[in-house]
Amino acid sequence: MDISSVYRIALDAMGGDHAPHATLDGACLALAKHPELYLTLVGDEARLRPLLKHHGLVGELASRTEIVHASSVVTMEDKPTSVLKDKKDSSIRVATQLVREGKADGVVSMGNTGAAMVASVMVIGTLDGVDRPCLAGVFPNMKGRPTVLLDVGANVDSKPEHVAQFALMGAVYAEEVLGIAGPRIGLLSVGEEDSKGNETTKAAAAYLREIDINFGGNAEGRDIWNGKFDVVACDGFVGNVVLKSSEALAEGIIKGLRDSINQSLRAKLGGLLAKKAMKGFMKKLDYAEYGGAPLLGVKGVSIIGHGRSDGRAVANAIRAALRACEHRVNDHIQESLHRMLPVATTSSDAR
Amino acid sequence: MDISSVYRIALDAMGGDHAPHATLDGACLALAKHPELYLTLVGDEARLRPLLKHHGLVGELASRTEIVHASSVVTMEDKPTSVLKDKKDSSIRVATQLVREGKADGVVSMGNTGAAMVASVMVIGTLDGVDRPCLAGVFPNMKGRPTVLLDVGANVDSKPEHVAQFALMGAVYAEEVLGIAGPRIGLLSVGEEDSKGNETTKAAAAYLREIDINFGGNAEGRDIWNGKFDVVACDGFVGNVVLKSSEALAEGIIKGLRDSINQSLRAKLGGLLAKKAMKGFMKKLDYAEYGGAPLLGVKGVSIIGHGRSDGRAVANAIRAALRACEHRVNDHIQESLHRMLPVATTSSDAR
Repeated sequence: MDISSVYRIALDAMGGDHAPHATLDGACLALAKHPELYLTLVGDEARLRPLLKHHGLVGELASRTEIVHASSVVTMEDKPTSVLKDKKDSSIRVATQLVREGKADGVVSMGNTGAAMVASVMVIGTLDGVDRPCLAGVFPNMKGRPTVLLDVGANVDSKPEHVAQFALMGAVYAEEVLGIAGPRIGLLSVGEEDSKGNETTKAAAAYLREIDINFGGNAEGRDIWNGKFDVVACDGFVGNVVLKSSEALAEGIIKGLRDSINQSLRAKLGGLLAKKAMKGFMKKLDYAEYGGAPLLGVKGVSIIGHGRSDGRAVANAIRAALRACEHRVNDHIQESLHRMLPVATTSSDAR
Repeated sequence: MDISSVYRIALDAMGGDHAPHATLDGACLALAKHPELYLTLVGDEARLRPLLKHHGLVGELASRTEIVHASSVVTMEDKPTSVLKDKKDSSIRVATQLVREGKADGVVSMGNTGAAMVASVMVIGTLDGVDRPCLAGVFPNMKGRPTVLLDVGANVDSKPEHVAQFALMGAVYAEEVLGIAGPRIGLLSVGEEDSKGNETTKAAAAYLREIDINFGGNAEGRDIWNGKFDVVACDGFVGNVVLKSSEALAEGIIKGLRDSINQSLRAKLGGLLAKKAMKGFMKKLDYAEYGGAPLLGVKGVSIIGHGRSDGRAVANAIRAALRACEHRVNDHIQESLHRMLPVATTSSDAR
């Protein structure tokens, strides 16, 4: 195999609700699928090593796997900043350290999202020209394709130029990792017309209109789901609220339907007959298919998965990290930001 | 009947996708159900009068119905401000004028939401002490009860004191109209902890903590649906995005499930058997059950319904207007704001 096409990903083996079993399952699935992948499992070595065999990490797969010990774990209750203080020895911190030291190309974690963000930004550092890294949510839309919504929670009180940068970074990710040619970019707002929006979106739109990209103007809330845009940019406050409310709403609808169906024998029978078809649709909605949220704008690749991730979701997050490395997402982000830079400078001067 | 318990509502008979048929159906349903209701149908008299009989507005119901002529209609394509300029003779403008002149206690419209808001605020006017009226969305939560989310689109770039006022007005509506005793108020943010949020939410929380209300701290996106709070307050930008994205997501899930089920005979049969149970659940989700969004903070009652409203939705919107009148929502809003006023003043001084 050509050495240039080989990548090493550091996996926070202890992060997530079902770690280390889900992370090890995911490691095995990903290694089996991607011969170009080398994995570094970061976590409690004494606990991880005996489990490798049980999770299929033997033979050739094991030869592409190594363990780096980390003595603690950041829990969901820990503060994100704990990775900078009393949990410097945590699996997520040690995994990001490997990227910083050039010992891994990317890091994947299903653990505490805030801690993974802090570790990635503070330990790996920010790309030149990026004011604020942002977290990109990748959602299935009603056309059966992905829509990238960003920022979904790395920043609040973003300035217009930050939101414009989010849009550019999201477009690079959509094009390079999700394979969407010339992704159509929308700016999340309260109406289609240019006159609709708040101070931040109006100024961000002015930036985006000046750049040679496929900017389609304002997106409305419904456009996150209908496939009208491939990339929808917003401040992390609204993105985070939409992310969490949508997840709860979708789960609530599915649960409500299931409960209703289970209330009568007749409906129950109907539910059984329709089960396969409904499952097929549900799979399309499943966040696990899209492999976690990339934290864009850091030097190196960082993918943050859902705490509830199972092995398949972990494997898909690793695949996302691999694609981001292969397609040199960060190089493209820097090129893209350079196109924007003169505009941003001009606008600042004009104030 | 005791004269003090009788209310007159002005209905924009021409507003909405299915007007005037849906509005006349709604008028009939509402009049039949509420003997204390008097309705003024506002719109093209030559068109409306011949339809009354067809829609059941005869006999005693007709005796509680009058028509006030309006020669134009604000369409969905018209700018909201058209009600102040070239469409002063529109049904929504004339209907709000009736409230201003004391000829009606409240107004209900299913037409152009922006126009209904502008007409209500500019023609009827704002309550003393209210900085900005706001639009309240009433959603069914997973506990089968309503959650009031506000503002869902009347304001962007709201200041902290505005968001705190929204919370108070929403609490009054929840208590007086929806019958929720001591409603639990949440402030929409990006995490439960007080430290999470943006500049606006942190300052709004400071206001709310000082007042004698049932303030439960920050709400997350998921809390709009899980019933943890009865009232969730936010700036109109984020509220509008959540409103539109949630509507599209729910519709997309239901449509996706239906399409999947229709793809196989077996699943189709299953769907038929489970239809009644699923419909029962769907009804719980139906915005039409909750009767439109009240515009809170104006002198008089203004309820703005969904453009797609059918007769039942119109009737429920009229019921909401009636309840708001009966329970003197505006008096309670003013009392509630008085409790907040000293805090707001102190905080402004302290800056």
